[in-house]
Amino acid sequence: MTKVPQLTPPRRTLLGPGPSDVAPSVLRVLAQPTLGHLDPVFLEIMDQIRSMLRTAFQTKNPLSFPMSGTGSAGMETCLVNLIEPGDRVLVGVCGVFGTRMVEVAKRAGAEVVAVEGEWGRALDPEAFRTAAAGREFKLLCTVHAETSTGVSQPVAPLRAIADELGALLLLDCVTSLGGTPLHLDDWGVDAVYSGTQKCLSCPPGLAPVSFSSRAQEALAARTHPVQSWYLDLSLVGSYWGTDRAYHHTAPINMLYGLHEALRLVLDEGLEARWQRHALHGRALVAGLEAMGLAPIVPEAERLPQLTAVRIPDGVDDARVRRHLLEQFDLEIGGGLGPMKGQAWRIGLMGTGSCRKNVSLCLAALASALGAEGFRPRGDALAAAAEVYAG
Amino acid sequence: MTKVPQLTPPRRTLLGPGPSDVAPSVLRVLAQPTLGHLDPVFLEIMDQIRSMLRTAFQTKNPLSFPMSGTGSAGMETCLVNLIEPGDRVLVGVCGVFGTRMVEVAKRAGAEVVAVEGEWGRALDPEAFRTAAAGREFKLLCTVHAETSTGVSQPVAPLRAIADELGALLLLDCVTSLGGTPLHLDDWGVDAVYSGTQKCLSCPPGLAPVSFSSRAQEALAARTHPVQSWYLDLSLVGSYWGTDRAYHHTAPINMLYGLHEALRLVLDEGLEARWQRHALHGRALVAGLEAMGLAPIVPEAERLPQLTAVRIPDGVDDARVRRHLLEQFDLEIGGGLGPMKGQAWRIGLMGTGSCRKNVSLCLAALASALGAEGFRPRGDALAAAAEVYAG
Repeated sequence: MTKVPQLTPPRRTLLGPGPSDVAPSVLRVLAQPTLGHLDPVFLEIMDQIRSMLRTAFQTKNPLSFPMSGTGSAGMETCLVNLIEPGDRVLVGVCGVFGTRMVEVAKRAGAEVVAVEGEWGRALDPEAFRTAAAGREFKLLCTVHAETSTGVSQPVAPLRAIADELGALLLLDCVTSLGGTPLHLDDWGVDAVYSGTQKCLSCPPGLAPVSFSSRAQEALAARTHPVQSWYLDLSLVGSYWGTDRAYHHTAPINMLYGLHEALRLVLDEGLEARWQRHALHGRALVAGLEAMGLAPIVPEAERLPQLTAVRIPDGVDDARVRRHLLEQFDLEIGGGLGPMKGQAWRIGLMGTGSCRKNVSLCLAALASALGAEGFRPRGDALAAAAEVYAG
Repeated sequence: MTKVPQLTPPRRTLLGPGPSDVAPSVLRVLAQPTLGHLDPVFLEIMDQIRSMLRTAFQTKNPLSFPMSGTGSAGMETCLVNLIEPGDRVLVGVCGVFGTRMVEVAKRAGAEVVAVEGEWGRALDPEAFRTAAAGREFKLLCTVHAETSTGVSQPVAPLRAIADELGALLLLDCVTSLGGTPLHLDDWGVDAVYSGTQKCLSCPPGLAPVSFSSRAQEALAARTHPVQSWYLDLSLVGSYWGTDRAYHHTAPINMLYGLHEALRLVLDEGLEARWQRHALHGRALVAGLEAMGLAPIVPEAERLPQLTAVRIPDGVDDARVRRHLLEQFDLEIGGGLGPMKGQAWRIGLMGTGSCRKNVSLCLAALASALGAEGFRPRGDALAAAAEVYAG
């Protein structure tokens, strides 16, 4: 085998759907010396992570900690712990991640009823009631921020419906945590999972989760063992709780990264951070529209941290993204599922949500589209500047 | 909430059962800029990881890559992918990790037959044959390097028995990979999982796995979906293979770490690395025995990278380990399961397997034991030096 050289990854600007740009201090702490997973200093770090996570989620839930896997492992954690074979589960589907919840819930033995909606639109709460058709459900699941389309799903109205169905309310907050308002306790959310590589600006690898006391009661009342040993909350919770019982060896250095990422979130303040994401998202859309690119999601349902735009006719998706990467070290995302080749997804997440990146993205896109023969309708940078001028 | 300061973990010497000391260049690459999970540069890094992993495992298996979780996720990956409900599985148990395999296999729906043996001893291959009692089995599972006791299990004899039972041979190599000889193809191993935080000297967080063509046929012949979507090899394999199909967002920076860790393993050479572990393990045991501490595992069955010693009567386990940590920034491990409070586990793994650490460990232990009123029988450092003198 040829000798492999030490790696020297280029410094990209990551404006795709995640991983997002990582804050420099988060990268630095990753390289701090590894501690044992039962070291008293590390146990203190764990407690600080739990406490900061509760603030970020706006909850008092004691059962709040990061699972040792990516956001998808967080989804599986919630579903396999809350579902027992034969449980009825209602899932809102208007993108890849709703579809995935259906798949994972089925593998956990649930009888799934999907509430299908148009991709690129939020789901009508009434559609959940209709699909439920008066039956009782164990869980009502929906995606708060659909990473495949950039749609924001209003959550509060779903609580009333979950109550009618006798259901726990489960939320996918992979792309919302740290980017847009999230109030677990006020909204009455029972279970939630997220990821580190979106608006927390930490590399991928951990899945923050949180469970209400009602969800904890459901866990305690289980009559079947959780099918996953690795993701079994009663075991993982013993390590993160006061027992400190060894379960698996925690991903120490990744947890350093999450600690620092959460610290930056709270240092900035949640409100300020949400407003920052809102501002730069608006500026980006103004620029894109000025160029003549059409956002897919109507304004009221749009996530500021992730914008899906339609690829203009005659423009080659792959060629544009290669141009951005090769000429500008800039990554944006392609479409997923039915939107493959039809849309780009541009993320302004966490530390990456800033004026510099909005300008870079608009300038680079103008260059790439120019190479495709696409003529921008107007001045994108001026349109963005107008948003900043208020 | 009180403001949380940026973390500054102390620099410990990690001589427990893992995480082990991390090589400085591995820590450094963790802090390299994050790439997108479909970036062409990252795809090349993935290919290099797969190729280096095959060499480290001594296999040609195309299906060799790291799963996005810790070693325990690797165990679950192997079991949930290879087991279908009702499959009969034979598991060797002489420590915590064999016990855990039984538990995980049961949760995957297997009918498990455990081959129980004494903790601290290798299992007699004949015991597998006896327990099988002439029945057919889907899987024969055993732990190659039992992290709870420091026992090395001879694997080659188990292949013949697996053949008699019509079984695939599954191996836990969490603690052996990169530390002691491992020859997947020569030994006829069908499935294997490992971790990064032992003899690879990388932080915890990834689980290298590998599957033979026979195991791949079993995967392809499944009639039930794999119960875990996150760990489903047909999906994860599509991303690591030529399809590059998005499944979950790979833990980019942790994979940088594994890349560098594997590079260091191959740079040193497998034979040289195995010999290094053997040498320092022998020196440590010589020193411990000279002090009057008794290794738990007989010499022929002992892992050089992990030594379990009996805690002398009248010596307080927790107090000694606190002394080591507070006075020497040195971590060793306590006993697990029935060995809790009865044994210490001292790891000399990966970059941590060196003469400096052997001396530090013996000197620090002498200090801690002295504080307990324990009088060493003889000169530990001199005994270790004799081993080094050949």
